[in-house]
Amino acid sequence: MRQMEEKILREGTVLPGGILKVGSFLNQQIDTAFLREIGREIARLYAAERVNKILTIEASGIAIAAAAAMEMGVPMLFAKKHRTSNVDGNVFSATAHSFTHGTDYTIMVSRDYLLPADRVLLVDDFLANGAALRGLIALVDAAGATLVGAAVAIEKRFQNGGDRLRTQGIRVESLACIRSMENGNLVFDTVSRAGDPA
Amino acid sequence: MRQMEEKILREGTVLPGGILKVGSFLNQQIDTAFLREIGREIARLYAAERVNKILTIEASGIAIAAAAAMEMGVPMLFAKKHRTSNVDGNVFSATAHSFTHGTDYTIMVSRDYLLPADRVLLVDDFLANGAALRGLIALVDAAGATLVGAAVAIEKRFQNGGDRLRTQGIRVESLACIRSMENGNLVFDTVSRAGDPA
Repeated sequence: MRQMEEKILREGTVLPGGILKVGSFLNQQIDTAFLREIGREIARLYAAERVNKILTIEASGIAIAAAAAMEMGVPMLFAKKHRTSNVDGNVFSATAHSFTHGTDYTIMVSRDYLLPADRVLLVDDFLANGAALRGLIALVDAAGATLVGAAVAIEKRFQNGGDRLRTQGIRVESLACIRSMENGNLVFDTVSRAGDPA
Repeated sequence: MRQMEEKILREGTVLPGGILKVGSFLNQQIDTAFLREIGREIARLYAAERVNKILTIEASGIAIAAAAAMEMGVPMLFAKKHRTSNVDGNVFSATAHSFTHGTDYTIMVSRDYLLPADRVLLVDDFLANGAALRGLIALVDAAGATLVGAAVAIEKRFQNGGDRLRTQGIRVESLACIRSMENGNLVFDTVSRAGDPA
C-alpha cells in the first residue's frame, strides 16, 4: 500500500535499536481518514476469504482491526494481555514473548467469542518477530476455528517473523514491508506492493 | 440512544458486585455495525462543538473512540496505562484509581499529540465512578487544551461519577444511562435519551 510507505517516510521516525516510531498517525495518535483507507485495503486483500471474525490483541491493534472489521461487516474481537498465567477456564489462553520488554505474557480471549465455525483474520499494527501473531494463532487453534491469514500495517521483514509464518503456509499481508532500516535509512520491500492496484 | 439500551437488555449480563458484562458487543467482541452507529451518535451529539481531537484510554475505549473520530473526521489519541509512575518528560501523566482492581495506575500521553489549541472530546466505554475520565481531564489540563466534554457508551449513574463531573460544569453524554441494576434488574435513566431524535 503505497500510502502506508509514504506516510512512514513522511511522519515516521527511526530510533536506535530497530524501533520505528509511528505514534503520530498509527498507534498512539491515529489519523482516522488514513485509518479508514487501511480498513478498506485489508478488506480488499481478504475479500474472497469469507472472513467472519477479525482477531487482534490489545491495545494498538484495536483501531486498525475495528476499521477493517467495519469495512468487512464482521465482528472484531481483541485478546487481552496479562502478566500472569492465572486465568480461569472460560478463556482460551496462550503465551507470547515480548522482545521489547524481555518478558513472557499471557494472552487470552473468552471462549464465548471464538468458535469452531469462525473463519478468522488476524490484524495488528506491527509484525516483527511474530510473537504476537503466533500467540493469536494458538488461540485460533485452541478454539478449533479456521485461520484465514493475517494483515498487518507494518512488517519489519528483517526480524523474520512474517517469513517464518509464510513458510508454514500462512497468508501474511503487510501494507508496508520494511526490508531494512539501518542508520535510519528505510528500505521497503516490493512484497508490500503485491496487493496494490496497478 | 435507544439502540444501546436495547442491546444491553438483549445481550448484556448483570454479574454480582455491580458488574455489567457487555463483552459480546462492546468491549471484547465488538459488533462493528453497531459500533458505526455509536460513532455516528457521538458525532451528532457534539457536532456543534468544533472538536478537533478525541482522547480515550486503552484498551476498551479505543474502538469506540476510533469510530467516533472517523465520523467526525478528526484524529483519535489514546492514553496508555502504566503500573509505575516512572515516566519520562516527553509525556503528560496523571494518576487514576481503579476501583475494580483496587490500585492506582498512571495514565500518560505524548506531549507531541495533545496541544494547547486542541478542542478535546473524551470518549470511553464505561463511566462509573469517573476515575478514568478525571485522569483524562488532568491530561487535557496539563496540555493547556480545551475540554469540550465527554461521551461514554454506558454510564452507571448510581456510581455518581458522571453527575460529579456535570456538577463541575463538564458536559457528559451517555448513550445509555443505568439508574440501578439491583438484583440483575436494569433500570435506565431518561437522561440517556436527552439527545435522541424525537
